[in-house]
Amino acid sequence: MKDKLEDLRRLLGEIFDLERARDLLEWDQSTYMPPGAAPERALQLATLSKLSHQKLISGELSSLLEDARQVTASMNPDSDDARLVQRLTRKLEKLRKVPAEWVEEKARAVSLSKQAWEKARKEDDFPHFEPHLTKMVGLIRQYTEFFPSSDHYYDPLLDDYESGMQTNHIRTVFAELLPEQVNLIREIGEREPIDASLLYQPFAERKQWDFGLEVIRKIGFDFQRGRQDISAHPYTTHFGIGDVRITTRIHPNYFGSGFFATLHEVGHALYEQGIRPDLGRTLLAEGASLGIHESQSRLWENLVGRSRAFWTWAYPRLQQIFPQQFGDLKLETFYRAINKVEPSPIRVEADEATYNLHIMLRFELELTLLDGSLQVADLPEAWNGKMQEYLGVTPPDDATGVLQDIHWSEGLIGYFPTYALGNLFACQLWQLIKADIPALEAQIERGEFGALRGWLDENLYQHGAKFLPMELVERVTGGGLSAEPYLAYLRSKFGQIYGLV
Amino acid sequence: MKDKLEDLRRLLGEIFDLERARDLLEWDQSTYMPPGAAPERALQLATLSKLSHQKLISGELSSLLEDARQVTASMNPDSDDARLVQRLTRKLEKLRKVPAEWVEEKARAVSLSKQAWEKARKEDDFPHFEPHLTKMVGLIRQYTEFFPSSDHYYDPLLDDYESGMQTNHIRTVFAELLPEQVNLIREIGEREPIDASLLYQPFAERKQWDFGLEVIRKIGFDFQRGRQDISAHPYTTHFGIGDVRITTRIHPNYFGSGFFATLHEVGHALYEQGIRPDLGRTLLAEGASLGIHESQSRLWENLVGRSRAFWTWAYPRLQQIFPQQFGDLKLETFYRAINKVEPSPIRVEADEATYNLHIMLRFELELTLLDGSLQVADLPEAWNGKMQEYLGVTPPDDATGVLQDIHWSEGLIGYFPTYALGNLFACQLWQLIKADIPALEAQIERGEFGALRGWLDENLYQHGAKFLPMELVERVTGGGLSAEPYLAYLRSKFGQIYGLV
Repeated sequence: MKDKLEDLRRLLGEIFDLERARDLLEWDQSTYMPPGAAPERALQLATLSKLSHQKLISGELSSLLEDARQVTASMNPDSDDARLVQRLTRKLEKLRKVPAEWVEEKARAVSLSKQAWEKARKEDDFPHFEPHLTKMVGLIRQYTEFFPSSDHYYDPLLDDYESGMQTNHIRTVFAELLPEQVNLIREIGEREPIDASLLYQPFAERKQWDFGLEVIRKIGFDFQRGRQDISAHPYTTHFGIGDVRITTRIHPNYFGSGFFATLHEVGHALYEQGIRPDLGRTLLAEGASLGIHESQSRLWENLVGRSRAFWTWAYPRLQQIFPQQFGDLKLETFYRAINKVEPSPIRVEADEATYNLHIMLRFELELTLLDGSLQVADLPEAWNGKMQEYLGVTPPDDATGVLQDIHWSEGLIGYFPTYALGNLFACQLWQLIKADIPALEAQIERGEFGALRGWLDENLYQHGAKFLPMELVERVTGGGLSAEPYLAYLRSKFGQIYGLV
Repeated sequence: MKDKLEDLRRLLGEIFDLERARDLLEWDQSTYMPPGAAPERALQLATLSKLSHQKLISGELSSLLEDARQVTASMNPDSDDARLVQRLTRKLEKLRKVPAEWVEEKARAVSLSKQAWEKARKEDDFPHFEPHLTKMVGLIRQYTEFFPSSDHYYDPLLDDYESGMQTNHIRTVFAELLPEQVNLIREIGEREPIDASLLYQPFAERKQWDFGLEVIRKIGFDFQRGRQDISAHPYTTHFGIGDVRITTRIHPNYFGSGFFATLHEVGHALYEQGIRPDLGRTLLAEGASLGIHESQSRLWENLVGRSRAFWTWAYPRLQQIFPQQFGDLKLETFYRAINKVEPSPIRVEADEATYNLHIMLRFELELTLLDGSLQVADLPEAWNGKMQEYLGVTPPDDATGVLQDIHWSEGLIGYFPTYALGNLFACQLWQLIKADIPALEAQIERGEFGALRGWLDENLYQHGAKFLPMELVERVTGGGLSAEPYLAYLRSKFGQIYGLV
């Protein structure tokens, strides 16, 4: 009977190979592909996606899974085999509830909607996008109806990115978060603003690139099993545990862009590189969820990368590399500049203290769009109202307001909350790590990251997607998702920086 | 009924996409892939190859082809559709004659044989490779027996790389070539040797790289639909007509390596970039054969790139870039150095006058290995004997002798002759082009390649693999393959350089 599991793994291996090949085509598209290849590349991506999907929903896989379920029924439910079967079962049960006609209709709608969104954003013309978004909201509402037994209509959406997560759980946590974060940035707003202009100077691109590589090498990114390249939108991808690639973009006149993008992506990459090799080539060989993944990018970008301890180590080196820009500048001045808090309309440029507010705004709007209490036509007004309410700013136009993100045009509804979950979970972990490694700060001040990485490998990375995200949170923290460590972190850090009481 | 053709094209499109995805994985492997990815990449390549092969030999394709044959029977036999059906039919008829067991056994043998060859070459230990080569020769002999109706046992091998080419035709041409080439290099050997040491100096790699790009841009390589990267073994690959990539390697202490590799590969690439877009995503979207392809790499590398006319244009620029190395050096001295003739044991380092002798030697040995008149155990002796006979040199050891090429270890028998065919066909074309474009030399002296490229586009490139190689030769030259233009070219060029009577 063990052979049945082997057969299942063989077929899953083929699906995995097709998906990773598609990912490599996408990586190439965003890094080195010549522009003339675009039309043919689109067809190639479509073919690979289609073939892997065909295998995934095939009768062959279905029957192998049925056999495997019998084999694993008598196993330790926490064994790799049992967990693999469990994850595959969840995935297929969900896929089977969605009619092929809906999938096709949505694919067509996405293709048109993305084009319309691009044009609308470029020309600051929300009405041009409106009918497409209305169509998309309708399709997504239909999707939620394929899962009538959900506690909340938003649950199946959330579950696509954060398996098993409950909408009501998120609402509770966000409700705790919102007044505190709004309050914090109001208090900060009353203090003297930080001058961050020192980050906006010419910085030789090659030197920025080299500094980033030097730091991530020290942090432990394994260049034998990964690499960094340049792309318009930084991201992390992997073609196996032995091949995890990050991309960054470097701004010649702003230090903050490239370096922190590299740190963010390396957080994702350490997670992928840390997965146990024997989970390889299965659907356990990836992060547990988007939120857990984001906790790692945020942990390395912010909790490590924007800490005073980190720059105590890294700043002298940075001064060596950019003596003109930083030679005479105190560590504290630099530290304050990279931690400047300033409410602004754009999510991807938001600082640590305001970021989640952008997410909560989108989450609330998604809920009201789906339950029909908000019409798409009224969305810009609702957007701007909430921006004022949460962040105290009003976008100058829709292009920098409701049209700023690509997500909705692609039908990605239920996705945004995972960014906030990442921030919260990162701080929960950080509290535990500090308790387990009392010397953590002193180590970081010396550029020593081995113990930190070891902790994350042991408690998080090695498991890949073996556990559901909330199971993993429970295993690691002994409790559920909590806003408190995050709020405590913000209060402490920015209280100190801005001299709050 | 036209729909049947559409269905066939759709399925061929999927096969094409899978094959190009596999090619991209290979390109990535030879350029940017981190070393730790190797084991997983091997599995991914195997999966993609398997899936495209399954589709190729599927009942679905077979039946679509049958329908398409009926549709095209009444068409112009030179229409794209008819030619596509013809090429696919040839390919499938051949594939069907080869039992799956043989394919599997050969794949296993190749895997072992390549490893053994690598070790044997490294340690100059032919006996270590001998049993593997014996096995391989046996397998290849078996393969020829799957095609009992061939005129010559070597025909089905040759046909794999040079569709429709006859062994006896090659023998005839080679028989004409051999004494003339042997005689020519003997005569050259009696003259004062050329001093080529000026090419062996330090040359900044970046400058070599930039010079190469500058030249191929001028020649007409389309960077909107292609790019150049670095790899250990220069080669050309394509993922569609809109994405043709070349690689090169640059030697920091030798000018000849990188630049001529770039020119060679750009010849292959211009061919691929020049294929008519409406042949795209089918099996007509490639060169007609290895030999025809090689004619283009040789044409640009040698007939253009080692000509006096070319360097009349390019040498002043090269002098600017490398003033220390070439500033005081006359064009004629440089021209002679890059055309130095010197028999040596290594094929890939051979000059224009000696190259084909390396091929004829391999061709003769392949024939006698297959007909049983030569035993693998006696191969090194036979190799060295022929080296002495054809080139007047004896390799210092087997590593630089019989073990130098990877081909036989991979079962590539019948492949070598295509290199020589490329040299011959290039000169046949050159004769025609010079007649059609009387100003050709003057144009090249001014760095103008438009008319030359236009001629090649019109007569060769656009057709892709629509015609069999010998059909194409016939269409272009009005006759068959001929050694005479090649011999005339060698006699004239080297007669002038070496002052032969």
